Amino acid sequence: MTDFAATRALFHLPEGVIYLDGNSLGPLPVAAEARAAQVLRKEWGDRLIRAWNDADWTTLPARVGDRIARLIGAPAGSVTTGDTLSIKVFQALAAALALRPERRIVLSDTGNFPTDLYIADALTQALNRNLEVKVVAPEQVANAIDDSVAVVMLTQVDYRTGRLHDMAALTARAHAAGALTVWDLAHSAGALPIDVTAARADFAVGCTYKYLNGGPGAPAFIHVAPEHADVAQPILAGWFGHDAPFAFERGYRPAPGVERMRVGTPPIVALSILDAALDAWDHVDMADLRAASIRLSERFIREVEAHCPQVTLASPRDPHARGSQVSFTHPHAYAVMQALIARGVIGDVRAPDVLRFGFTPLYLTEDEVAQAAAILADILATGEWDQPHFHQRANVT
Amino acid sequence: MTDFAATRALFHLPEGVIYLDGNSLGPLPVAAEARAAQVLRKEWGDRLIRAWNDADWTTLPARVGDRIARLIGAPAGSVTTGDTLSIKVFQALAAALALRPERRIVLSDTGNFPTDLYIADALTQALNRNLEVKVVAPEQVANAIDDSVAVVMLTQVDYRTGRLHDMAALTARAHAAGALTVWDLAHSAGALPIDVTAARADFAVGCTYKYLNGGPGAPAFIHVAPEHADVAQPILAGWFGHDAPFAFERGYRPAPGVERMRVGTPPIVALSILDAALDAWDHVDMADLRAASIRLSERFIREVEAHCPQVTLASPRDPHARGSQVSFTHPHAYAVMQALIARGVIGDVRAPDVLRFGFTPLYLTEDEVAQAAAILADILATGEWDQPHFHQRANVT
Repeated sequence: MTDFAATRALFHLPEGVIYLDGNSLGPLPVAAEARAAQVLRKEWGDRLIRAWNDADWTTLPARVGDRIARLIGAPAGSVTTGDTLSIKVFQALAAALALRPERRIVLSDTGNFPTDLYIADALTQALNRNLEVKVVAPEQVANAIDDSVAVVMLTQVDYRTGRLHDMAALTARAHAAGALTVWDLAHSAGALPIDVTAARADFAVGCTYKYLNGGPGAPAFIHVAPEHADVAQPILAGWFGHDAPFAFERGYRPAPGVERMRVGTPPIVALSILDAALDAWDHVDMADLRAASIRLSERFIREVEAHCPQVTLASPRDPHARGSQVSFTHPHAYAVMQALIARGVIGDVRAPDVLRFGFTPLYLTEDEVAQAAAILADILATGEWDQPHFHQRANVT
Repeated sequence: MTDFAATRALFHLPEGVIYLDGNSLGPLPVAAEARAAQVLRKEWGDRLIRAWNDADWTTLPARVGDRIARLIGAPAGSVTTGDTLSIKVFQALAAALALRPERRIVLSDTGNFPTDLYIADALTQALNRNLEVKVVAPEQVANAIDDSVAVVMLTQVDYRTGRLHDMAALTARAHAAGALTVWDLAHSAGALPIDVTAARADFAVGCTYKYLNGGPGAPAFIHVAPEHADVAQPILAGWFGHDAPFAFERGYRPAPGVERMRVGTPPIVALSILDAALDAWDHVDMADLRAASIRLSERFIREVEAHCPQVTLASPRDPHARGSQVSFTHPHAYAVMQALIARGVIGDVRAPDVLRFGFTPLYLTEDEVAQAAAILADILATGEWDQPHFHQRANVT
């Protein structure tokens, strides 16, 4: 049984804050501070260039990848880390398209995160082979899969509503039509149990700064199914994905397996911090995590619906159809969220009217969730949110 | 007059080491440690998601870019930071090629860093428009520029020999033929005065972990000349390059200027460390740096040639035709370098036979250079290098 009081103690949680935004930026793991100090002073500082060997920097992307692999049901050696999620989407989609040269449709949905669609648009235009990105409503994806589709590219959990796609069913449907899949796990890795192997996902990518708590702009990950890993052609043919980077050969020879999805020099400090952040997961059973996440989100919905008639649930009511976040709509979502933050309850908003709350059992208690709901009820009942400074927009929310 | 004793005090330099590999990985700036601790605890830890606004994380890539701009002669607002150099080469080359749709040659040279050529090969194949990467000898580049050339893509300083290209002359030649230029400044930014504006470079990219001391795998930079910045089409259309990332629009609208060359979520911890590393440059006059670099490298060549008949100079003899590194060849370069490192003199090797030494006046003294040459002479004279353990290869050198 996972001890969530113990995992909570692994994080730095500022006084007076109830943090319901771990689905956007996870909190600081205490171990990350010592690890950062160590990689700076003891590795970079004392060992200088020698640390590439001494401190095993060269294998760090793979070692961190293996720890993530376990959380998404991928075999060891099938995940590597680095770059950003946008880059990893680009690599995965390009590799998948190259495996289906005769087809011309990339199928996605309106619940996908915009950057995935931007990346797909620009990539498909650049490839100059009459490709088209077709975007349908989430519930229409299954029916839109036909034998014109090269790649089905979806984010498993909708960033606005928390709606959860059935990865196994949609992948089976894609395969039956001869298409491949690219799954974005940004809002699901570390949020719920994932089994990319059982689902037969072809490519999976994700970021690590949300539920995995790797820090702002932490490195992304990419998984390539073993059956594709040795044939996938890297469009970003950087030297660290070369079979022998330090031979400095004229021609690119991709490294075996997923290592070819490395690009440039790995971000060692950021990967070390992420590695320390992943320690928390050594103590977590993903089934326990899911049960706790559902308990927290169900409690929140129950309290909010009982005491906040001003807001409307925007997430699926069935907890098994959601990831680990809950959204409510309110016409003045932005100001309401600012008022909540002023009271120490941190969530975020998504335009135009979505209040978004993430539930992260690693460091969040049911008491906090109930308290957050009560504060929301108070803010809405009193109209506390309707003050000029709460309407004033900042850059990022 | 730059006070190089003062800049030396800004770095953590381990006892007993003479570091001649700052052209591969710069040493730890002392300020980076406090800054890393601060961004972790005070920004990420205490402010959580709010730090995107509170701590001005959103503008960090541009603020760091402006500090690099000053070092390469670029106007403020024309440089952004993030990703790796391989990614930035890909972006710059793709944008340049899109500006010359009717031409089919990417011209580069055998002195370019292999990853630049790998990236160009894979990109040009992917673009499916009959492009060709033509690689000539460095001294043949000027004559190979004709009106079939879309882009001249070169690394200003050769990573093996230190040979320095004439950026202004080659760019003028490219422009006269109607071609654009992509300059890789990996081995020149922070090594010598650069003026991309005077040279009329169209695109310039570079890494920050060498002479700029940003740390292992530190973020890269990209400069787009103002005349192209608002028309360059990003092939990596990530959300942070969108004009309004948090509007979550369906379509990609590039941000004005070089900001469109941002891709995913910026690596805040790594950028903060780089920002702290750049403090050292506030005190440096680039002309002084160049004079000191030449003084150090000339002294090294003089001492080595006087006392080490076993090695042969592989760099241009004219200091104005070199960057800030000097290479010598020796048939057993690898073992010789291991013996040097065992004696505390850290340089590196490049296959098959190059001993490579970087000269970095920010933290290197002429006494150290003389001492390094004396140790090399001793190792070569005694045959100390010819021991089995010095021949044993590590992953990275």
